[in-house]
Amino acid sequence: MLETVTAILDWVGIAAFAATGALMASRKQMDIFGFILLGTVTGIGGGTLRDTLLGTLPVFWITDPAYLVACVVISATLFFLAHIPQSRYTLLLWADALGMALFAVIGAEKALLSGTAPVVAIAMGVITATFGGIVRDILGGESPIVLSREIYVTAALAGASVFVVFSVSGLPREVGLVGGFVVAAAIRFAALRWKWSLPRYRARSEDWRGDREP
Amino acid sequence: MLETVTAILDWVGIAAFAATGALMASRKQMDIFGFILLGTVTGIGGGTLRDTLLGTLPVFWITDPAYLVACVVISATLFFLAHIPQSRYTLLLWADALGMALFAVIGAEKALLSGTAPVVAIAMGVITATFGGIVRDILGGESPIVLSREIYVTAALAGASVFVVFSVSGLPREVGLVGGFVVAAAIRFAALRWKWSLPRYRARSEDWRGDREP
Amino acid sequence: MLETVTAILDWVGIAAFAATGALMASRKQMDIFGFILLGTVTGIGGGTLRDTLLGTLPVFWITDPAYLVACVVISATLFFLAHIPQSRYTLLLWADALGMALFAVIGAEKALLSGTAPVVAIAMGVITATFGGIVRDILGGESPIVLSREIYVTAALAGASVFVVFSVSGLPREVGLVGGFVVAAAIRFAALRWKWSLPRYRARSEDWRGDREP
Repeated sequence: MLETVTAILDWVGIAAFAATGALMASRKQMDIFGFILLGTVTGIGGGTLRDTLLGTLPVFWITDPAYLVACVVISATLFFLAHIPQSRYTLLLWADALGMALFAVIGAEKALLSGTAPVVAIAMGVITATFGGIVRDILGGESPIVLSREIYVTAALAGASVFVVFSVSGLPREVGLVGGFVVAAAIRFAALRWKWSLPRYRARSEDWRGDREP
Repeated sequence: MLETVTAILDWVGIAAFAATGALMASRKQMDIFGFILLGTVTGIGGGTLRDTLLGTLPVFWITDPAYLVACVVISATLFFLAHIPQSRYTLLLWADALGMALFAVIGAEKALLSGTAPVVAIAMGVITATFGGIVRDILGGESPIVLSREIYVTAALAGASVFVVFSVSGLPREVGLVGGFVVAAAIRFAALRWKWSLPRYRARSEDWRGDREP
Repeated sequence: MLETVTAILDWVGIAAFAATGALMASRKQMDIFGFILLGTVTGIGGGTLRDTLLGTLPVFWITDPAYLVACVVISATLFFLAHIPQSRYTLLLWADALGMALFAVIGAEKALLSGTAPVVAIAMGVITATFGGIVRDILGGESPIVLSREIYVTAALAGASVFVVFSVSGLPREVGLVGGFVVAAAIRFAALRWKWSLPRYRARSEDWRGDREP
C-alpha cells in the first residue's frame, strides 16, 4: 500500500516536471530532440541529485529505465500537442507546482528511508523539489521560478516538514505523504492564484545598488 | 585492441573539449588560470557526470590524473596560441563536434560495460557528449550550443544509438565505436556546414509570447 | 590538534560562504526562504561536490546535519541584519575571499586523506573553493566572481599547492593548512585591495568578436 502510494506520487511528479521541461522547450521554439533533452533533464533532475547526495548509486533511472522512457515519450508528445493549451506558461507554472509538491514529500521520504536525520530529510525534500526546475530554467535562459516573487521554496519546505514531522511522530507514512503533498500544493497554488508573497528583503539605504563597481 | 581504440577515442575527445573550453576563455579574454579552469571543466565534465551517475566513484580523473594534467597543459598552451586560427569560434564549433561524437560512443560504452539497459546507455552517451559543453557555455555566459538551431542532440543520440544497437546485436565493439562516431560526427559536421536543422516548434497562436506576466 | 584545526577552518569557511549566499539574496531582494536556499547552497556546495567526486557518500552534511543547521541559521539571521554593513557587495567579496582560502586547503586535505595523487588534491582544493560561489552567482543571475578581472582561481591554486607541497614534503599538516590558507587569502585580498590582475588574453586581430554569426 505504502509502496503503491509512493510509486504513484513519484510517477505523477516526474511526468509533471517532464511536461514543464517540454513547455519550456516550446517557449524557446526548439526541435523535438531539444524537447526530449529539456523534458528529461527536468523530469529526472531532482531525483538524480537526491540519489547522488544520498549515495544510492547508480541513480534511480539507471536501475529502472522506465522513468527515462516515460520522460522521452511525454516530451516528444508535447512537441505535437503543446499548442493546444491557451497559455503554455500558466500550464507550466501549474504543472511545476504539482511536481514540486510531490517531489518535496518523495524526496524527504527517500532520505528518511536511507536513515538520515529529520532536518536532512527536510532539506532533501526541498532539493528534490527545486533542482529539476532550476536546471530547466537555467538551460532555457530564464530566471529560476524558484527565486520568483511568489512563494515557492516556502511551499516545498512546508510540505517536506509536514511529512517528516508526521513520520517522526509515528503516524502512518501514507498520512504524512498525502498531508505533506496537500500542504505544499495548497500553499503554492494559493500563492500563484492570489499572488501571495512573503516580505522581501529591502535595503535600508538608497545606494545599495550602487555599491558594485562598474 | 578494443581497449586501445577506446582509450584513443577518449583522449582525443577530452583534448578536443578542453580546447573548446580554452577557446571560450579566449573569447572572454580571461587570464591563464581562467583558461585552465574552463578548459579542464569542459574536458572532464561529461565523463565526471557519467561516472557519478553510474556510481563508479571516485571519478576517472581522480584514479588516473593524467587526464587532468592533459587538460591543464592543453588549456595553458592555447593561452599562447589561440590567436593563430583565423576564426576561433568556428574552430570551437568543430572541436566541439569532434568531442561530442567521441563522447557519445564512449559514454554509451562505459554505461553498457557497467551493466545498464540499452536505453540507459544511449542516454548516458547523450549526457556525456553534451554536459561539458553546457557547463562551458553557462560559465562563459553564452547560450548553450546544445540548444542551438543546428542539429546537436540529434547527432549525439544517433551516434550513441548506432553504437548500442551494434553492440547489442553482437557486432564487435570496435565496429560499433567507429560506426557510432562516424554517424554522430557526420550528422553534426553536415549540420554545421549546410546549416541543417530539424523543424522547430512553432506556436499556433500569435500571442504565446505574451502569456508571461511582465 | 590537527582535527581541531581542520574542523575550525571548515566551519569558518562554511559560515563565510553561507553569508555570501545570503548577501547575494539581499542584492536580489528575496524573501527569507530565498536567503536560506541561496545561503545553504553556497555554504555546502563546494564540499558537496568534493565528497561526490571522491565518492565519500553520503555527503558530509547528511552524516553531520550541524553544518546544514548552521547555514540555515546564518542565512536567516542575515535576512534581518544585512542592512547594517555599509556596502554589502564589498562584504560579500571579502567573506567570499575568506571562504575561498579556507576551502582551498580543506578540499586539498580531504583529497589527500582519501588517497589521491598530489595533482588531484590541488584540483580538488580549487574545485571546493570555487564551486559554491559559482552556483551562487549563476542562481543570482550575475557573472561568476571566479571569472572576474581580479585574481581568483590563481589564489585558490596557490593556496592548495602550498598545502599539498608542504604535506608531501612531510611537514606537519597544521603548518601546511595555515601556510596554504595564508597564501591564498593574502593573494586574493591583495588582488581585491590593489586590483591586481594577471595579463589577460588579447585577440591579435581586430575582428575576433565578429566571427560568430548573428
